[in-house]
Amino acid sequence: MSSSRSLAAALRRARVPRPRTFGPAMVPHRPSGGAEAARRSFSVASTVYAPKEVKYTTDSYPNIQRNPKFAEITADDVKFFQDRLGAPSAVIDGVTTDATDDIEPFNGDWMRKYRGHTRLVLKPRSKEEVSEVMKYCNERKLAVVPQGGNTGLVGGSVPVFDEIVLNLSRMNQIRSFDDASGVLVADAGVILEVADQHVAQHDHLFPLDLGAKGSCHIGGNVATNAGGLRLLRYGSLHGSVLGLEAVLPDGTIVDALSTLRKNNTGYDLKQLFIGAEGTLGVITGVSILCPPRPQAVNVAYFGLESYDQVRQAFKLAKGQLSEILSAFELMDGRSQQLVHQSTGNKYPLEGEYPFYCVVETSGSNPEHDMAKLEAFLEHIMSEGVVADGVLAQDETQFQAIWRWREGITEALSHLGGTYKYDVSIPLPELYQLVDDCRERLTQLGFVGDDESHPVRAVVGYGHMGDSNLHLNIAVRQYNKEVEKAIEPWVYEWIQKRNGSISAEHGLGLAKKEFIGYSQNDTMVKLMKQLKDLYDPVSFLSLPLLFDVTNRPQNGIMNPYKYI
Amino acid sequence: MSSSRSLAAALRRARVPRPRTFGPAMVPHRPSGGAEAARRSFSVASTVYAPKEVKYTTDSYPNIQRNPKFAEITADDVKFFQDRLGAPSAVIDGVTTDATDDIEPFNGDWMRKYRGHTRLVLKPRSKEEVSEVMKYCNERKLAVVPQGGNTGLVGGSVPVFDEIVLNLSRMNQIRSFDDASGVLVADAGVILEVADQHVAQHDHLFPLDLGAKGSCHIGGNVATNAGGLRLLRYGSLHGSVLGLEAVLPDGTIVDALSTLRKNNTGYDLKQLFIGAEGTLGVITGVSILCPPRPQAVNVAYFGLESYDQVRQAFKLAKGQLSEILSAFELMDGRSQQLVHQSTGNKYPLEGEYPFYCVVETSGSNPEHDMAKLEAFLEHIMSEGVVADGVLAQDETQFQAIWRWREGITEALSHLGGTYKYDVSIPLPELYQLVDDCRERLTQLGFVGDDESHPVRAVVGYGHMGDSNLHLNIAVRQYNKEVEKAIEPWVYEWIQKRNGSISAEHGLGLAKKEFIGYSQNDTMVKLMKQLKDLYDPVSFLSLPLLFDVTNRPQNGIMNPYKYI
Repeated sequence: MSSSRSLAAALRRARVPRPRTFGPAMVPHRPSGGAEAARRSFSVASTVYAPKEVKYTTDSYPNIQRNPKFAEITADDVKFFQDRLGAPSAVIDGVTTDATDDIEPFNGDWMRKYRGHTRLVLKPRSKEEVSEVMKYCNERKLAVVPQGGNTGLVGGSVPVFDEIVLNLSRMNQIRSFDDASGVLVADAGVILEVADQHVAQHDHLFPLDLGAKGSCHIGGNVATNAGGLRLLRYGSLHGSVLGLEAVLPDGTIVDALSTLRKNNTGYDLKQLFIGAEGTLGVITGVSILCPPRPQAVNVAYFGLESYDQVRQAFKLAKGQLSEILSAFELMDGRSQQLVHQSTGNKYPLEGEYPFYCVVETSGSNPEHDMAKLEAFLEHIMSEGVVADGVLAQDETQFQAIWRWREGITEALSHLGGTYKYDVSIPLPELYQLVDDCRERLTQLGFVGDDESHPVRAVVGYGHMGDSNLHLNIAVRQYNKEVEKAIEPWVYEWIQKRNGSISAEHGLGLAKKEFIGYSQNDTMVKLMKQLKDLYDPVSFLSLPLLFDVTNRPQNGIMNPYKYI
Repeated sequence: MSSSRSLAAALRRARVPRPRTFGPAMVPHRPSGGAEAARRSFSVASTVYAPKEVKYTTDSYPNIQRNPKFAEITADDVKFFQDRLGAPSAVIDGVTTDATDDIEPFNGDWMRKYRGHTRLVLKPRSKEEVSEVMKYCNERKLAVVPQGGNTGLVGGSVPVFDEIVLNLSRMNQIRSFDDASGVLVADAGVILEVADQHVAQHDHLFPLDLGAKGSCHIGGNVATNAGGLRLLRYGSLHGSVLGLEAVLPDGTIVDALSTLRKNNTGYDLKQLFIGAEGTLGVITGVSILCPPRPQAVNVAYFGLESYDQVRQAFKLAKGQLSEILSAFELMDGRSQQLVHQSTGNKYPLEGEYPFYCVVETSGSNPEHDMAKLEAFLEHIMSEGVVADGVLAQDETQFQAIWRWREGITEALSHLGGTYKYDVSIPLPELYQLVDDCRERLTQLGFVGDDESHPVRAVVGYGHMGDSNLHLNIAVRQYNKEVEKAIEPWVYEWIQKRNGSISAEHGLGLAKKEFIGYSQNDTMVKLMKQLKDLYDPVSFLSLPLLFDVTNRPQNGIMNPYKYI
């Protein structure tokens, strides 16, 4: 089928638009990138998830050493927590009992890249309990790692040594929703999808959506300033989060859980906790503005001959779809081959193309939206901007198309390990990084289809609307030689373009030492100053156990320099 | 004309929608609330603006005393600034010369409520010059007030004593605009309207609009976290500001002028400066995301019989106009009478109503927008939600309608002084504050049409979409008895409803002592801690010369308690 024919056919069908509701049942249930779902999908997909096979982070990074200023957990400590937290399920005790099997899931990340040595997991159920835990740990100098849904990609939510895991999963109550204002107030441990389904009952939409929605917590989303699929439409959490409740390292409960859209009475302190990755305090509650749920959602899938055409298509979509454009996702040809191989699903288009994109609209009037989308399709087709395309005609097709975008992460996970880089680069050069990286690794002889080559694929995809690229290097297993070939090369490449080495995943353990590529010395110094202000003992969350200010003159962080 | 007939007529006309461009020429040039424009309008409107007639703040508030730890400006200081800032226009020297006439405009606010004693105004032209000034003042312990367009309403941008005015008006260059991403980078002293006109040339829109746009600076907008007319559509500056450049009290230049939409590499420090009212540092540059300029903008004006109907109309507008709703403004009947008396303009509707609202849509497709608006109009008309209404048919009518909303501030200014309260209150009780306040002042015998009554009018208007009410009490002259009847009563009223005593105007001098009504002790303590971190000398900006933490047990700030 020629490209113009398939699009024309799509357009003909599109001329009889069916009004569709974007209710809970319509939310595409994409394969979740979260821990539990990942385990589920791993087990059905031939690769069995076995935490014990994962290398300890201390072995992968032997240059990281435990700071002796932190205390070891004792039986008395365990007793204290058991007394205070009450419920037996609130304390998983690997200190005085053998609880390895119960504890292991909290020690590791779902990418199977990091694995800690914790022997104690605490699951408080209220801000008061979190406060008691924090105060005690601060005084006893027991290191703590806050953990939400544990779906992070940078090793920020798992311990390295024996840090106590403070898991928020029992703080999982919706506190209130006001459908006049659209403001949801909920515990930090509420799962994103649960929050969205709750507000969907009142015709509202949680203003964040991402692959891990089935497992990740809204508290973790806020702590990591998650961006997700529809940031270009619903904006940053710095704008939509109206209030926060958090517990500081010394146990102070910060109640800034305002539900007001405007409140200019002094410094907006809650902003500090958004994106601080749990290093300034533990978020226990969130107040967030939810927009009305769109009445109509449409999605189209395109094949394109070049990255320049993707840019053209994006510019046209921004101009013509304007206020109803809710996502513009880029996927390269290799990423779609992987999804095809992993799922066995038939490609949405007949030919294969070097680039694909998913364009989604969300609006209040199905006919108007379809008219705008048709005009857009006709334009990009007649101008030859896209080579081929399909428009989802029903909910099944809608979900199927999104799976080609959201299935990439899972498809990659079947190949072994993945080096993931989540970066911001000005649009003109966004995809160039993938080409340059592939070429570099190919020239070094790392890329190939057989066992002798560590690298199986170099793929790129991401959020065009946010200039956000996900560069993924799939390896047969994690390999120091490959890592050295990528880092710091990739960070230098980004620094030259004034990009960001972490668009949305955060620094965690993986990227903390590289902050100097995206932040200048003054900014790093000011961050350290704030950390010292809130957590002078620096017991909260592992990444900040390392000195972010100790950097040589060339502006690059010392790897894992220890305080 | 009956309400249904006038609306029906409007609808008939509306059925032939004219595509309209929202280009620079189409931006309604509303009477600016800013300093310069205010002076212009005062002079044309019988009340001549005469700074010298305004009472000194030190006389109005005799309990505020100058902190002796701050130095007095000497001739040597003036010499230093003249040498470093170079240009003669950069230093207005009232220390060694008589420059009263030149200096007075910088000592007073446009509401004629505050008047300081400064004898020195500095106008640096670069961040390096700001840095030199700040470093020197910090070391010499010379108090400084940063000043943008000086259009504030809470006395935050003018001195009380002899603080040096650091005016940013010479930092007025657009640095760059990228029409692919929509990111504008500009000096802090660029006037809001100039910034908007610049991006309009590239079919973009500055994501903030407010009455003072002809005078206010974008740096001041960010420093005060201005909300304005279209926050419900374009969101908060915490979401749209991508980067900032600021100078800290010690002269450190903070370069966080990122143009990236996503950058999760450490703490988002720029957020601290948004809404800090210049007390943590002086903003010198702004990077901001501008949305595409809408192709079609429509505005309608309604008369309604009750506040409950205003709420109903807002709920319907939110649901039916959804993504194209760009403003929903409330005005009470009294406010519109004042505009009528002040301008002599004929009312937009034939009858008079206790409530009015302005509903604006902005979208990319004129026909779609008009269809949505028509459906909305038909619905609220047939349901009897509104009593009467008109829809602007051309640019002249568009501007005329907006003038009924934006002319309130100026109309009030002709009456004498105005006690202004800018508050957030949950929607159900939003307007109740105005009724309660009017009743209270009436019972006390303050309200009347003749000279024996200090209060001329109690009016309410504001941004329904943001739960933001502007309560204005127009007085013949500022009157301590009236003030005592209003404060702290008004703040207690708001506190009982968990509202905010300052939705968007900020604290400044006017509301600083009342922060306890909207922030709890912990929050105030954490704010003080941050102020101490960035400005231990506390020389920057007057409001923080007063101790925000010194409060009696009842949770209310001591008036002007001195450190």
